[in-house]
Amino acid sequence: MLVCNGCGSAYKEEELLWRCPCGAHFSLDKSFSMNPSMIDNKYRGFWRYNKALPIEDALSAVKIGEEFSPLVTKNWNGANIHFKYEILPTGSYKDRGIAVMLNRLRELGVKSVYEDSSGNAGASIAGYCAAADIPCEVIVPESTSRGKCVQIEAYGATLTKIPGPRSAASMEAEGRGRNSENRCENIYASHNWSPYFAHGVKTWAFEIWEQLCLAPSSELMPDAVVVPAGQGSLALGAWHAFSDLIRGGAVAKIPRIYAVQGSSCSPLYNAWTNGLENVPDVAPPEGKCIAEGIVSTHIIRGAELLQAIRSSEGAVLAIDDEKTVNALLKLAKMGLYVEPTSAVAAAAIDELYSSKCILPGECVVVLLSSSGLKTTPYIQEILDERKI
Amino acid sequence: MLVCNGCGSAYKEEELLWRCPCGAHFSLDKSFSMNPSMIDNKYRGFWRYNKALPIEDALSAVKIGEEFSPLVTKNWNGANIHFKYEILPTGSYKDRGIAVMLNRLRELGVKSVYEDSSGNAGASIAGYCAAADIPCEVIVPESTSRGKCVQIEAYGATLTKIPGPRSAASMEAEGRGRNSENRCENIYASHNWSPYFAHGVKTWAFEIWEQLCLAPSSELMPDAVVVPAGQGSLALGAWHAFSDLIRGGAVAKIPRIYAVQGSSCSPLYNAWTNGLENVPDVAPPEGKCIAEGIVSTHIIRGAELLQAIRSSEGAVLAIDDEKTVNALLKLAKMGLYVEPTSAVAAAAIDELYSSKCILPGECVVVLLSSSGLKTTPYIQEILDERKI
Repeated sequence: MLVCNGCGSAYKEEELLWRCPCGAHFSLDKSFSMNPSMIDNKYRGFWRYNKALPIEDALSAVKIGEEFSPLVTKNWNGANIHFKYEILPTGSYKDRGIAVMLNRLRELGVKSVYEDSSGNAGASIAGYCAAADIPCEVIVPESTSRGKCVQIEAYGATLTKIPGPRSAASMEAEGRGRNSENRCENIYASHNWSPYFAHGVKTWAFEIWEQLCLAPSSELMPDAVVVPAGQGSLALGAWHAFSDLIRGGAVAKIPRIYAVQGSSCSPLYNAWTNGLENVPDVAPPEGKCIAEGIVSTHIIRGAELLQAIRSSEGAVLAIDDEKTVNALLKLAKMGLYVEPTSAVAAAAIDELYSSKCILPGECVVVLLSSSGLKTTPYIQEILDERKI
Repeated sequence: MLVCNGCGSAYKEEELLWRCPCGAHFSLDKSFSMNPSMIDNKYRGFWRYNKALPIEDALSAVKIGEEFSPLVTKNWNGANIHFKYEILPTGSYKDRGIAVMLNRLRELGVKSVYEDSSGNAGASIAGYCAAADIPCEVIVPESTSRGKCVQIEAYGATLTKIPGPRSAASMEAEGRGRNSENRCENIYASHNWSPYFAHGVKTWAFEIWEQLCLAPSSELMPDAVVVPAGQGSLALGAWHAFSDLIRGGAVAKIPRIYAVQGSSCSPLYNAWTNGLENVPDVAPPEGKCIAEGIVSTHIIRGAELLQAIRSSEGAVLAIDDEKTVNALLKLAKMGLYVEPTSAVAAAAIDELYSSKCILPGECVVVLLSSSGLKTTPYIQEILDERKI
């Protein structure tokens, strides 16, 4: 069942609602758990955790190459940091959530979908829909990187560009969704609204658990995780995963979750610093934001996100573009090539140590959400500016 | 020791020769073996096979995120094909060979390097050199994809563009190499000449052995492998890996190796169809070649390559650009987004079945050498042409 986070109404999954008629978003009515005996060794990638995912038949699920993403340990200004480098099949962490969402919708009989995206989720849903032979339309802001647009079209999806900010693409998709809320044909498969997506994304944290806690040579437990945050699915994913692991008796606590926004669009950070219980909308930023993937003016799961971060004893940070660019170049010079959106998390590391949020010797994981190959022209601009 | 394939002379590795003074290339004087008990479970990616690699200390090796690449099974015109999708840290299979070559050179005390490349090997060596803090210059043809050039520069390497065909970049690098053959400073770290690179690349075939033969649910043995071939490192890699596995008692035979070239530059194919023992040079192709990564007019290990393919009972094929483009789009519509160079291998599948080189029911692995994100403008051109 889908349970509304606003009015508490419950609906069958088969009704294929993307949100509650009251306007609020859904969560799932069941909780999951995970421990070493629940890992499904038939699979090598995130399908290993299918017993903690909202999907009935992992074997029949459409797959496009889900191996573990690497966890690379590097020295960052004297601290040993474990970087979770999300080079998944379509090039970003979005594959985790989209794989679960799209395969669940497929189990529920969906025939065609559309979705709004800043680019990476769109590329991911286009890739999975191609493999599933489900027609797909992706609605993106006009400013979306060329690399992402070409990828979406190569997968055979219809690409619709909407002038204006990221929120204009959402409004277009949601507007259509309001007029056709309950149909198998052409449903609004919104990664940001979908509770399936939220659970799929949590597999990043299951993987670090297996890579750190269950590794033959380590048995480390992360003290802190640092993630970029637009809608906050990576932060909520960490919270879901470690909650599942606690329920499964596999770990004792949730690591502190640090969610990092770009300072030009930081509604979550604003709410955090003002001690709010929910996240008020902000106006779209003027001009280009270097971290294009996390420009979200309306945070759908704001209340849950703030609660998860608070209960983990973490925090929210906002990072300016210059620090993000410096972090991107510093990562590349360690051999980790990422898009600017990923670099915001790395850019927060120094501040987290200097403010003593993270103490020397703690086990820290920083998530790098996507490959630098996604945003060649942006990175070229950065390099050109530095040469002048 | 390094043993010359031309005159048979042997040199210490510490002499850091990139080729024999007689002009021929080197091989290593030792053979390796592999079997399940030799897998090093401290590692998850290709460092698992370090006991069969020419490297002394895998633990200290510089790493940038070496997980297994995915093996994805798809239906291709009625046949079940296992696609080995090489989305490694820098986006191509070159990381396997470069990781081993660069780390071995590092063990031997090398202080700075240069290399010629059509782009992917250059991006890879730039990435590993960044992580190893070894200054690096990459010499590429002027026509190299922007995505690869930006990536090389982001890693902090010096990018030198040479007008003319791919061979002009090689001539520049080799010319410099002839004038300074024996120096720790600024050595010619040529992936095409290096025997370390050749052994690193073989890990792709160790992985399919583990993914197919040792998987809990399968125990399949590949009957045939299909790879794109420029210098032929993937084909030789398959031959090395399965030879090591035979020596280790892990498998009984080498799969048939099918090496696929683009028809606009196909010296290996010419030699094969003419029944030669070595590969004569060809003239650089006129105009753009869609499979830019395998345009090689001079094949360094031609004799070994022909011998390996013959002894495996495989063959060499040449595929025209139109078939390559069709295969690229067909792969994308299965959720596998690759660069054109990768698509030549997939384009050969139909011909291999229709000519009965491969029989229905055989276990077939097709290697996809790199991500489509490497060549956004090329793929955009392809999409634009199809729309007209």
